[in-house]
Amino acid sequence: MKKIRVAIIGVTGYAGEELLRILLNHPAVEIRYLGAKIEKGTPIGEIFPQFSSLHLLCHSEIDKEEVLKVADTIFLALPHGVSLQYVPYFYAGGKTIIDLSADYRFDSAEIYEKYYIPHTSPQLLKEKVYGLPELYREKIKKSKLIANPGCYPTGVILGLAPAVKEGWINTESIVVDAKSGVTGAGRSLKPQLLYSEVNEDFKAYAVGTHRHQPEMEQEIAKLGNGKSRILFIPHLAPYNRGIFSTIYADLKVRVSSEEVWEKYSSFYKEEPFVKVLPPEKFPSVKEVRGTNLCLINVRVEKRTGKLVILTVIDNLTKGASGQAVQNFNLIMGLPETMGLENLPYLP
Amino acid sequence: MKKIRVAIIGVTGYAGEELLRILLNHPAVEIRYLGAKIEKGTPIGEIFPQFSSLHLLCHSEIDKEEVLKVADTIFLALPHGVSLQYVPYFYAGGKTIIDLSADYRFDSAEIYEKYYIPHTSPQLLKEKVYGLPELYREKIKKSKLIANPGCYPTGVILGLAPAVKEGWINTESIVVDAKSGVTGAGRSLKPQLLYSEVNEDFKAYAVGTHRHQPEMEQEIAKLGNGKSRILFIPHLAPYNRGIFSTIYADLKVRVSSEEVWEKYSSFYKEEPFVKVLPPEKFPSVKEVRGTNLCLINVRVEKRTGKLVILTVIDNLTKGASGQAVQNFNLIMGLPETMGLENLPYLP
Amino acid sequence: MKKIRVAIIGVTGYAGEELLRILLNHPAVEIRYLGAKIEKGTPIGEIFPQFSSLHLLCHSEIDKEEVLKVADTIFLALPHGVSLQYVPYFYAGGKTIIDLSADYRFDSAEIYEKYYIPHTSPQLLKEKVYGLPELYREKIKKSKLIANPGCYPTGVILGLAPAVKEGWINTESIVVDAKSGVTGAGRSLKPQLLYSEVNEDFKAYAVGTHRHQPEMEQEIAKLGNGKSRILFIPHLAPYNRGIFSTIYADLKVRVSSEEVWEKYSSFYKEEPFVKVLPPEKFPSVKEVRGTNLCLINVRVEKRTGKLVILTVIDNLTKGASGQAVQNFNLIMGLPETMGLENLPYLP
Amino acid sequence: MKKIRVAIIGVTGYAGEELLRILLNHPAVEIRYLGAKIEKGTPIGEIFPQFSSLHLLCHSEIDKEEVLKVADTIFLALPHGVSLQYVPYFYAGGKTIIDLSADYRFDSAEIYEKYYIPHTSPQLLKEKVYGLPELYREKIKKSKLIANPGCYPTGVILGLAPAVKEGWINTESIVVDAKSGVTGAGRSLKPQLLYSEVNEDFKAYAVGTHRHQPEMEQEIAKLGNGKSRILFIPHLAPYNRGIFSTIYADLKVRVSSEEVWEKYSSFYKEEPFVKVLPPEKFPSVKEVRGTNLCLINVRVEKRTGKLVILTVIDNLTKGASGQAVQNFNLIMGLPETMGLENLPYLP
Repeated sequence: MKKIRVAIIGVTGYAGEELLRILLNHPAVEIRYLGAKIEKGTPIGEIFPQFSSLHLLCHSEIDKEEVLKVADTIFLALPHGVSLQYVPYFYAGGKTIIDLSADYRFDSAEIYEKYYIPHTSPQLLKEKVYGLPELYREKIKKSKLIANPGCYPTGVILGLAPAVKEGWINTESIVVDAKSGVTGAGRSLKPQLLYSEVNEDFKAYAVGTHRHQPEMEQEIAKLGNGKSRILFIPHLAPYNRGIFSTIYADLKVRVSSEEVWEKYSSFYKEEPFVKVLPPEKFPSVKEVRGTNLCLINVRVEKRTGKLVILTVIDNLTKGASGQAVQNFNLIMGLPETMGLENLPYLP
Repeated sequence: MKKIRVAIIGVTGYAGEELLRILLNHPAVEIRYLGAKIEKGTPIGEIFPQFSSLHLLCHSEIDKEEVLKVADTIFLALPHGVSLQYVPYFYAGGKTIIDLSADYRFDSAEIYEKYYIPHTSPQLLKEKVYGLPELYREKIKKSKLIANPGCYPTGVILGLAPAVKEGWINTESIVVDAKSGVTGAGRSLKPQLLYSEVNEDFKAYAVGTHRHQPEMEQEIAKLGNGKSRILFIPHLAPYNRGIFSTIYADLKVRVSSEEVWEKYSSFYKEEPFVKVLPPEKFPSVKEVRGTNLCLINVRVEKRTGKLVILTVIDNLTKGASGQAVQNFNLIMGLPETMGLENLPYLP
Repeated sequence: MKKIRVAIIGVTGYAGEELLRILLNHPAVEIRYLGAKIEKGTPIGEIFPQFSSLHLLCHSEIDKEEVLKVADTIFLALPHGVSLQYVPYFYAGGKTIIDLSADYRFDSAEIYEKYYIPHTSPQLLKEKVYGLPELYREKIKKSKLIANPGCYPTGVILGLAPAVKEGWINTESIVVDAKSGVTGAGRSLKPQLLYSEVNEDFKAYAVGTHRHQPEMEQEIAKLGNGKSRILFIPHLAPYNRGIFSTIYADLKVRVSSEEVWEKYSSFYKEEPFVKVLPPEKFPSVKEVRGTNLCLINVRVEKRTGKLVILTVIDNLTKGASGQAVQNFNLIMGLPETMGLENLPYLP
Repeated sequence: MKKIRVAIIGVTGYAGEELLRILLNHPAVEIRYLGAKIEKGTPIGEIFPQFSSLHLLCHSEIDKEEVLKVADTIFLALPHGVSLQYVPYFYAGGKTIIDLSADYRFDSAEIYEKYYIPHTSPQLLKEKVYGLPELYREKIKKSKLIANPGCYPTGVILGLAPAVKEGWINTESIVVDAKSGVTGAGRSLKPQLLYSEVNEDFKAYAVGTHRHQPEMEQEIAKLGNGKSRILFIPHLAPYNRGIFSTIYADLKVRVSSEEVWEKYSSFYKEEPFVKVLPPEKFPSVKEVRGTNLCLINVRVEKRTGKLVILTVIDNLTKGASGQAVQNFNLIMGLPETMGLENLPYLP
């Protein structure tokens, strides 16, 4: 098989590390360039011993021209705001770009700027495709610029999509109560992320102000009637990987749990990475740990007139790097599951 | 100080162990009788080394007559259904009973029986007082039979009470998304409670069917207009102690975050164990670990018309044994905080 | 590739589950029979959802004849004492047997019986090969009965072997201080294995009396001068997978850290699963999580005249099921690493 | 009771926080001054909400004169090297100083300087008393400068003292294999202390080079024949509080487990904080969590001629701040256990 040459910029964060894990085992990939914000160029095996079979330097200064030369697809696993510095150049160079940051996820520069920073290449926002394959597969296949979804939005949008498309729920009063493992906060040196602090604790943060809220709203609005208001409350839980989303929506129509379950099941029937669970089976984050899966339980709670949806994903895999590779596979015409078939990390 | 003689039946569960911890340091208490479902009578210091200063046998067969003779107050830390076997006898004997089980929490035997088992002393249901001091302090002081609230209901009712009393929210569409530490499941030998299973996992359970749901509804109905429907979703999180409740209610009136915060603050102003946090301070379970505290954050989320309340308690303390001792203090005319003043277990 | 038909008896324990994970992805294996001590025959996908792609029943009653018919290689992941009931029959049937229990690990029935139970097929003890490929590769290739090593012995013997063979250390005063994750205790329902008990705790157990002590001594004696006395102290640590062994041996000869390091490096140079780390790099259990690797750090501590060896393995993989598959590969003439090449589970 | 006025410098580290917890509940203490390396003076209740009842500023600039004026006893919970800046001044001012750092623990400036930094007040080394009450109680009572022992040395010296004093063991070949919880590393912002890194991991560090090694050797040498060589290997384990030390010593004399146990028991018979466990009871770190206790198990392992000692302490309490208060009580003529009597944090 002719290998596709790839570069990863931002390889030292958790998403970058996970991306490298997946790509290193991907039969159609040849890794050609690594970069990250580190002090000086360092062999990747010294940074991450598990990758010592890969004899490649991780560059501290990104030589964009060199990247253009050696790579066909460029993965950016950078903090928001930093991707802005790379995407226009690589896009102009005709490369396929899969950007894991938030920088190109929004359709409107205005909303991006409200939650992040000034956007320096807003013209590219309409070129990008929001990389959620289950909803935008055909567009993804033809795209050169993928804005890979945020971790929370991935699990939430997949959980809401069928109900929103059917017009069953009021999209302006959705509650998302999400619980994330600690890798979701990245590898940043903050006192509140120290082991002794997080361990044995559980807390909410960014109540109603998290940046993933407008991202979810953008996508839910597009799936439905153009309107969306979501109250999003993220929580930090003491485990490493995984997001558990408990979603509450007001039903606008009379529909039974059975109908809902059947619609969800048929909606995702052909999807390799989305599983609708039997009604009495609730998902757990460990079942998807290390995989690109999203598990969904959905039910009508009649007494309160709510649709309740439970979803789990691994924030580093389906919530970031696994989805990035899924998008890559689609663009390259490869089997969608290539490199993404490993079983969950259990126990 | 003349000491009050107490018995603890069911001392080997987590709530019983916590109760003994508190009572052992309580200056007005003399522990006179211990019992539990164990194979044979065993010194308590052999079961729990931390209590070896207490030279007392833990009985395997409860001698009810003996209990009547040696104790003035009887704490029952038994599974539901088992308290039914003791309460009528001790009540007839004129003792003060503080029952940590669900057996006398309901006003209606019918509801109890729907969720638990047939009730064998329904006549006592109207004698009991639901032991939530912040709401029923005066009744508690005069009671001989306290039905100590469930762990989830404690944090949820305290979080909802001011808003319900003000008539601000629709009590028929409340969502309670709660996250409990593992001691909440008790010391029972179930495969899903093994360390290797719970560790690194997070999951929902008993979605919409948990027994604490009707208990919350009973109390919320009484505080409001007699009607209550709550959608309660408990989750199991990988830490030992604490319940984090995220509560979502639909506002019926126009009210600001400031007004709400002020009402809550004044409502709990005199309470030694309930703290309303500043608006931008979110609670965390570790802040209350080992204490009898309940911390509350409350806010209006205008875009979606919701009142959002975050509360934390320690399920073993305010959610069980601490609250039992708080009730005991009230009944005995002791300072309400006696024996309950320790600082949280940090870090 | 013609597939080798295998059976797994005892698939519901942690080692069995891990074995099935590995074999399901093994390109040369066809899984034909599953059995376990369960209440009634159940599809494996109902027991372990991660294996639902495998449409196979897990039998509650093992039909030995059927096993003989459908499988060429039989993996036994059973508690000690239970393998005794199966091995003679399958061995007589000419099958290749890889037994993960302790039942055939000892050369002497007497020692087995001292630590375990009466042995009912001692004649087979001399037929078995102790399945540590790094020491017994050639014998393993020709064997029909593999006694797969215990988890603790695997990491300890690999750590000691080069020094013992060189005659550098006194093999009668070895100290092994080992720390195991909780899956090492299996999936048994014991109160001390509940999450709320193990979490935040650390303790020693079976000090000087653990059954893996005579197993280590047997092997170390064979590698050296026939004599071995090991003081083995295992500890239980609050994480799921991995064994960290800190080994202290008295040096009999003058040897430098450099010489030792070089000998170890050359001893394991060709080994795919054993890595001798650079002198200043200490191993950690997470680096081998989910892999078949053993990492070793070795050094001379001159001041006290000790050789200190640090080793890590994953108790379920190199310490049990991964090693079983490594043995299987050797016997079948397959590449030794087949099915065992995945990267560690990080973070 | 007339209260003793105290100051705490370095209150924002884990040891400082623990010290404040203890002193806040200490009936004979009035806290008068707090200081720490923070950006600007901040009410302590804003830094640590659990202390909001204490209306006191935590100073960012330490006004030494002011401290002299308002406090009689000064606790220094500072990193090594920083205490050097304060001790001479406060000592000259006639205050009682309890220094939790390593700065005055050594008798010899030379050894201190080999492991730490140049010593600027070596003349005070002979004024200090090493604050291990079980060994130096009478000297402590008369001292104005306490060098509070390191966390590892506390558990190790208590474990070795009776055997060393009896002359039973070779003090030049002692092995100490210790396992510490993560608070032992302090509240420092290091990537390897992030939750996602430490969680599910276990590793050794500073093998043979840890600064607590010479501290142990100094004390063991003094207890014995003046000679001591200890091989000390610390490990980092994924829990918050506690040190488990497994100590291996070569026996020089014939002595039985019974004799040893009896000597240890009588040696510590009157000690309020040291408990020698029954021979078959192994200690665990959770049993001492939040307490000032040290639990000891001791035994002769005849086959290998070793004395094996297992000890547990809470690194923040007996290993730091609890011991500091124990020393304070001794100096002030207060009951030794005052403020230190709480039960362990269980479960």
